[in-house]
Amino acid sequence: MASNTEAMRFRRPWSEQELLEQFIKGKTLALARVISLVENEAPGYRQLLSSLYHRTGKAKKIGITGSTGAGKSTIVDELAKLLVGRQQTVGIIAVDPTSPFTGGALLGDRIRMQDLGLHKDVFIRSMASRGSLGGLARATREVSVVLDAFGKDFILIESVGVGQVALDIAEVVDTTVVVLVPESGDSIQAMKAGLMEIADIFVINKADRDGADRMAVELQAVLDLGRRNNDWDYPVLKTEARHGHGVDLLLEHIDRQRDYLVRTGYLKKRKEELLRAEVRQLFSETVREKMERRLAGEGSLDEVIADILEGKLNPYLAVDQLLERVKGAEI
Amino acid sequence: MASNTEAMRFRRPWSEQELLEQFIKGKTLALARVISLVENEAPGYRQLLSSLYHRTGKAKKIGITGSTGAGKSTIVDELAKLLVGRQQTVGIIAVDPTSPFTGGALLGDRIRMQDLGLHKDVFIRSMASRGSLGGLARATREVSVVLDAFGKDFILIESVGVGQVALDIAEVVDTTVVVLVPESGDSIQAMKAGLMEIADIFVINKADRDGADRMAVELQAVLDLGRRNNDWDYPVLKTEARHGHGVDLLLEHIDRQRDYLVRTGYLKKRKEELLRAEVRQLFSETVREKMERRLAGEGSLDEVIADILEGKLNPYLAVDQLLERVKGAEI
Repeated sequence: MASNTEAMRFRRPWSEQELLEQFIKGKTLALARVISLVENEAPGYRQLLSSLYHRTGKAKKIGITGSTGAGKSTIVDELAKLLVGRQQTVGIIAVDPTSPFTGGALLGDRIRMQDLGLHKDVFIRSMASRGSLGGLARATREVSVVLDAFGKDFILIESVGVGQVALDIAEVVDTTVVVLVPESGDSIQAMKAGLMEIADIFVINKADRDGADRMAVELQAVLDLGRRNNDWDYPVLKTEARHGHGVDLLLEHIDRQRDYLVRTGYLKKRKEELLRAEVRQLFSETVREKMERRLAGEGSLDEVIADILEGKLNPYLAVDQLLERVKGAEI
Repeated sequence: MASNTEAMRFRRPWSEQELLEQFIKGKTLALARVISLVENEAPGYRQLLSSLYHRTGKAKKIGITGSTGAGKSTIVDELAKLLVGRQQTVGIIAVDPTSPFTGGALLGDRIRMQDLGLHKDVFIRSMASRGSLGGLARATREVSVVLDAFGKDFILIESVGVGQVALDIAEVVDTTVVVLVPESGDSIQAMKAGLMEIADIFVINKADRDGADRMAVELQAVLDLGRRNNDWDYPVLKTEARHGHGVDLLLEHIDRQRDYLVRTGYLKKRKEELLRAEVRQLFSETVREKMERRLAGEGSLDEVIADILEGKLNPYLAVDQLLERVKGAEI
């Protein structure tokens, strides 16, 4: 009978109070539901985050980025296994700016991780962008807040190292690992994508392939040239993650980098900077949303568009007009 | 003596009035200067754009995107040569989200285009992102407004087809050409990057390489599967741009696609949509800037950050407080 009641409880939607209770008890189902609410910006999701916020601040957040096929997921899997072996709980966020054209089909390689996902101390969430990439960065930041509040010791955020996504995610994590492969052009691509700026640790994966040693030397040379003004040594590691080689060393360097951040006070400073950026962005977003709703409500936008199309106005003067209309309005 | 006066005129900064006069006369130096003002968001640049806006609307805007090394610049060069041969004037914007770490060094391949750049009817501008990628999209849109106002018949916008940059630029152009190479993974990459949604014409460049035919068939199959609800046929063309092969055919299809857009009324509809998005964005940006300046001015942000760090507040409640403070304020 008890199991029947249990089963029914799963079918009935939880009240917000029940959801929070289950979450705080550490129920994975509640975690998954809270993440969905946050990801979908369901009504009240900000209040939910607000009520969880005081539970955050303990998780260590590691970003793993690099080009497609570099072996990021394999490295993340191996890291998760090592961490579980150290009695640490792990949350994995796999960020994939998948094309809406192909839908989730290209997320296929995540299926591989399901055996790991069944482990009670590892929670995996794939997030694909279906709208704006800005939205993806927001969702990633907020889902990592949820995992932190849930009590995960480590949060591993895996993302394709292209464009804004990788840079936005570097704004969420404490440590960024950039994964390269010994293929001509991969390090140039990484530089173009701005990954040199955000990397704390470099990994050359598939290091059994030709060119790994040369790549390591070249990378080190570039790093020596462009070294930022601090005394972190930007390690360049070689791994063969598919055979589990070198990932333990990577974890050692992740630990070492964290010690460095704590010892120098950079971690505290960094968290303060991120907080400042977060509040500013949250504020701007809220103001923007409110103003846009107001604008849409009163049809002013349609009017000025019509005027521009008739040649009576241009976009710059139109914005001045719109500002005049909302002047002094309730925000 | 006249040439001496002329030389002096170049040294002395133009007044805004002189700059506009020179621009309207079609002086390339004035064009370059206006573009710099816009790119750097120099004081008064919006007024400048505002005063030029009524001259726009005639240029045909073509986006050329694809992965690094696909031969985009070669295709752009060849297109420009063909257009000049047709007595058309051309503006080229090469958008390169270069890493600030490596600076402009990776823009080296643009040097190749200098012989073309010396042609009086072709104006080339490279734009590298030094800050946000959002800023790059804005600059690209506004520089294309300037080139349009200057009277360029065609504006070719070349960009690396990754992440948000390619998608943002698709919002500026009438026609998007996606350039692929017959290499395993390149079409998958393109799909992941969301290029299938924005492409009007596909080009398989370096078509002398193995796998070009197979790639064309595969691509066509994917396109048949995911065909959008309209009657444009999404051509898949093969080129060897380095030898000039196939680019004339590409230009034919660009012309054909434009005829299609005009005939069906899609061009008008599309321009109206873009205009709406542009005004909305310009409005939001302006509101955001004003509010942020206000916030920075009165030190409210510092206060709430301190409170959050002391555990007295969280980011979500902080934003509510900040909103309360600016309520009813002048925007």
